[in-house]
Amino acid sequence: MTHVTMPQEVVIREVGPREGFQILPRVVSVADRLRLIEALVAASVRHIEVASFVRGDKVPQMADAEELVSRLPQADGVEFTALCLNAKGFERAEKTGRLKNSGWIYTSPSNSFLKANSNLTIDGSVAQVPEWAKLFRAHGKRLHGIMVSTAFGCSYEGSISASTVVSLVKRFAAACESAGEKVSEICLADTVGMGSPKTVRECLTALRPLGIPVSLHLHDTMGLGLVNAYAGLLEGVSIFETSVGGMGGCPFTPGAAGNVATEDLVYLCNELGIKTNIDLDRLCKAAELAELIVGTELPGRVYRARSAQKSCK
Amino acid sequence: MTHVTMPQEVVIREVGPREGFQILPRVVSVADRLRLIEALVAASVRHIEVASFVRGDKVPQMADAEELVSRLPQADGVEFTALCLNAKGFERAEKTGRLKNSGWIYTSPSNSFLKANSNLTIDGSVAQVPEWAKLFRAHGKRLHGIMVSTAFGCSYEGSISASTVVSLVKRFAAACESAGEKVSEICLADTVGMGSPKTVRECLTALRPLGIPVSLHLHDTMGLGLVNAYAGLLEGVSIFETSVGGMGGCPFTPGAAGNVATEDLVYLCNELGIKTNIDLDRLCKAAELAELIVGTELPGRVYRARSAQKSCK
Repeated sequence: MTHVTMPQEVVIREVGPREGFQILPRVVSVADRLRLIEALVAASVRHIEVASFVRGDKVPQMADAEELVSRLPQADGVEFTALCLNAKGFERAEKTGRLKNSGWIYTSPSNSFLKANSNLTIDGSVAQVPEWAKLFRAHGKRLHGIMVSTAFGCSYEGSISASTVVSLVKRFAAACESAGEKVSEICLADTVGMGSPKTVRECLTALRPLGIPVSLHLHDTMGLGLVNAYAGLLEGVSIFETSVGGMGGCPFTPGAAGNVATEDLVYLCNELGIKTNIDLDRLCKAAELAELIVGTELPGRVYRARSAQKSCK
Repeated sequence: MTHVTMPQEVVIREVGPREGFQILPRVVSVADRLRLIEALVAASVRHIEVASFVRGDKVPQMADAEELVSRLPQADGVEFTALCLNAKGFERAEKTGRLKNSGWIYTSPSNSFLKANSNLTIDGSVAQVPEWAKLFRAHGKRLHGIMVSTAFGCSYEGSISASTVVSLVKRFAAACESAGEKVSEICLADTVGMGSPKTVRECLTALRPLGIPVSLHLHDTMGLGLVNAYAGLLEGVSIFETSVGGMGGCPFTPGAAGNVATEDLVYLCNELGIKTNIDLDRLCKAAELAELIVGTELPGRVYRARSAQKSCK
């Protein structure tokens, strides 16, 4: 049995500009979204998901993804990416020439969620692996990872066991191998926020024998987002997807709250002596800006505590 | 070295009716405070701090503590207590004949906090041990525990090390022994919310050789309240002080947020398979009532997620 230790450094992928603005009931201007992205760059955030390439008639909040990408700032060492759930989206994203998208395949152990989110089934998503592989290669890329949504539970199907996730990942790993590709990352998304330190730990432990790095994308619906992130850190997870200010949610999961706030995770890592290479002061300023743009207090705690402390002085 | 395991069962002491209403800038009626207490009793909460006996001219929110106590419901198996920072307060509480106060002594490793909170010094609080012991005995009680405020850091003095806390506790343990008393519990209060899983763990580890049970009272200022509770559970802590809805804060610590929400801790314990003997559904109803009485959304996540899910159905 390997002795697991906390990482010395973590990679944080910021998803706020995509997930946070996509969930809002109104369209936020490209200019405002760019202001937030610039504030994140100023805070030394190095991985930023800036938009999703989806159908503009269905998701008007992201209809202007091309325009936003064309106006992204020049920022050395920053990887801008976009969410692309299908081939059309991936091709639109590639066409911009400004994004560093990796080859991700999206799935879920819940057929009900897949149906609602992408009109797919589990079998269907496994069957698409060769097409995805071909698509990635056509753009000079290789398959990178499997994004597992509702990895810890689903509003429609209830809790999901670690063994179910392992089976799913094994099916994908085999399909990828058949397609001449290798899975280099599994991202477990707690889309609904049903995970707990127990289930996070169980899933990470069950996946460990596969030898594939696992990242976490955690929603904070029941207040356990950061607790689950800590459970992940204790199990050696070193890649997290978070959202500035804790923006976000999922339109297909009623009641689901936003992601773990990026600044809250950075604060936790700082306290634990884990490097993030992100400037917390500037990140809190970015969260304040996000609040201003969204027009309401966001769930993130650290930026609000700092604001409150400032106003007490 | 002892192998530490998570507890199978935890005791939760609810402090919302005292801490939550004391911090508000207005006086909440006895009737409303009683409604909340009754809702907590209905949720099978078995330890409830209902008021503090302090100077009514300084803390008008608690000026009617006697009236509130006289109207407490009959509730078998429920321990109602009150916070008493000095002898006068303790005597007033005892006089009601309705409270099950234990013998607590209040201190802090921060002279600045002690000065602001109780016009005391560390030396002064140690010197009071014999008087406290005498007072408890005069009421047929014995000394029970030491409440250590700002155990992980203080707004005035910054972070506080585990060794400082251990020294403080040792001084008190010695003073108690000299007074013919024994310390049966150390409650570490993260009054400002400056603790982290690292410092919580360090402090618990450093205190372990003393062989005295340690309880935690955690504020959620930086969003780490529940993470710190989990770190405490991992270190075997089985007594927590929390506040329904996450009400609370400390008037002497600018920017400090409320306690860990009782229902959030109960939810976490349920997920971890740890018994609390509290009815989570009814507790969430109590949190909804607290929100109604306070008149604003409270920080607790679980009760809000449940409300949101209900409105989505």
